[in-house]
Amino acid sequence: MSFELSLNTGTTPQLSLREAVEAVAAAGLEHIGPWRHLLADAGGAEAAARIIAEAGLSATTLCRGGFLTPSESAQRAEALESNRAAIREAATIGADELIMVVGGLPSAAHLLGGSGDRSDTSIVDARARMAEGIAELVPYAAEHGVRLVLEPLHPMYAADRAVLSTLGEALDVAGEHPAETVGVVVDTFHVWWDPQLGEQIARAGREGRIASYQVCDFNLPIASDALKSRGMMGDGHVDFATISRWVAEAGYTGPVEVEIFNEEINAQDAATTLETMTARYGELVLPALQAAAPAPAP
Amino acid sequence: MSFELSLNTGTTPQLSLREAVEAVAAAGLEHIGPWRHLLADAGGAEAAARIIAEAGLSATTLCRGGFLTPSESAQRAEALESNRAAIREAATIGADELIMVVGGLPSAAHLLGGSGDRSDTSIVDARARMAEGIAELVPYAAEHGVRLVLEPLHPMYAADRAVLSTLGEALDVAGEHPAETVGVVVDTFHVWWDPQLGEQIARAGREGRIASYQVCDFNLPIASDALKSRGMMGDGHVDFATISRWVAEAGYTGPVEVEIFNEEINAQDAATTLETMTARYGELVLPALQAAAPAPAP
Repeated sequence: MSFELSLNTGTTPQLSLREAVEAVAAAGLEHIGPWRHLLADAGGAEAAARIIAEAGLSATTLCRGGFLTPSESAQRAEALESNRAAIREAATIGADELIMVVGGLPSAAHLLGGSGDRSDTSIVDARARMAEGIAELVPYAAEHGVRLVLEPLHPMYAADRAVLSTLGEALDVAGEHPAETVGVVVDTFHVWWDPQLGEQIARAGREGRIASYQVCDFNLPIASDALKSRGMMGDGHVDFATISRWVAEAGYTGPVEVEIFNEEINAQDAATTLETMTARYGELVLPALQAAAPAPAP
Repeated sequence: MSFELSLNTGTTPQLSLREAVEAVAAAGLEHIGPWRHLLADAGGAEAAARIIAEAGLSATTLCRGGFLTPSESAQRAEALESNRAAIREAATIGADELIMVVGGLPSAAHLLGGSGDRSDTSIVDARARMAEGIAELVPYAAEHGVRLVLEPLHPMYAADRAVLSTLGEALDVAGEHPAETVGVVVDTFHVWWDPQLGEQIARAGREGRIASYQVCDFNLPIASDALKSRGMMGDGHVDFATISRWVAEAGYTGPVEVEIFNEEINAQDAATTLETMTARYGELVLPALQAAAPAPAP
């Protein structure tokens, strides 16, 4: 079956891995995309793998690796080590794909609890360090059968979270490596505004790079915590019909993950969230995917 | 003289046009970029022109035209009429350049006091309407000796304010018209994150389209009113040295305008703001512009 729904656990942050797995199974879904801290809380990746498998679910992605942009070598070594651990965890839970949020500028590192040269705002240099970090991790990821999945983030997060800002840029970085080792994720929240989106999704399909399609809406006004401006599909300003058509036309047929950071949704009962996201997915996203999907071979 | 500083009156919203003109002259500057409502408050464009001229200043730009994306024909006609009035006003005050903030999606029009189909999130269609609107205004602007200056806005404003999100997209739209009738503005706040920025600034220079260079910083965290996240140069995460170098290498030698929407700066004494912006400009922007500027002919 194509286009099956997956819950990213960022949508239900109040739940443990076991609780999230149970909620997903109870909602009749078969896929989950966990965050790393849930694996740790569950007793490690092997225990997490059992919890996921025993419920009959599969892990679509692991969130997340990345933060490869520090300019200091000790921080850089630490980041690479953390990414190698994430790669091993992804392999252990059977997630073929590790989502990479690549990191921001040294000038903004303190905002996420890190440190860096407050005067270093060079996004050109930070991008070069990101590409080097990815290159350094590719062989290790390949050995473990895990694909690094580059996530372009909305430019409002370019300073503090990810200097990777467009799908085209992600494909340029990925293009240095084989398609089976480095892919990209199309997350509607992050890329809906991009005037090159249609052509870059088509390119991502041609180059065999679309590893994941993630859907959520872009709400306005922007939340006071800007990270939490993600909304339930249909509540904001994303044209899901068009973007979903492009993704299906590009040949993607895999799971579709829902990741919503939003005060209200994150606080509500998970069953309600799963019910709403399933309904909205069926109404706003799935029909466009199905209409554009290539017909199966006879 | 090249690279002279200009105050955009959005930086000093508490001042009338006369007060702003006096503050600019007292600070030893010679240029001002007024917003339209100040012209109206001063008794109209002719009265405003006298106020500016009597102080020995020149108007660099007029803010702003645009909002060309409504899907309903009555709203569209109204928007075009308002833009024609803005063109006449720009000509009257001697501003060769009318800054265009092109407008957002129908789904978000209500957020700025307008109306539109709340379910219409098609940014593809809105962009097509924007390009049509520009094309419709070009002959009128040309008759009045005014250049329409397309302003790509940060993608965080793509839904409510401007579906024009990158310099490359602005140049594509501008490219349908002669360079003397449609230009672009490079505003550091809006474009600093763009991975194509260097090449697109160079292209803008080659194509003769850089009509204005505007500087202010990108602050984090994003302000609760996202419009007011603009910061004084040096307070945020923009790499002014690199962007200024690109702008000067592209051949731009005109005025540099400072436009900062920021609760704290907007509330403080205008003389303090002008003093700080002059100092920061001299420290962070001007040296990079001067170092990269082509040497004057012997």
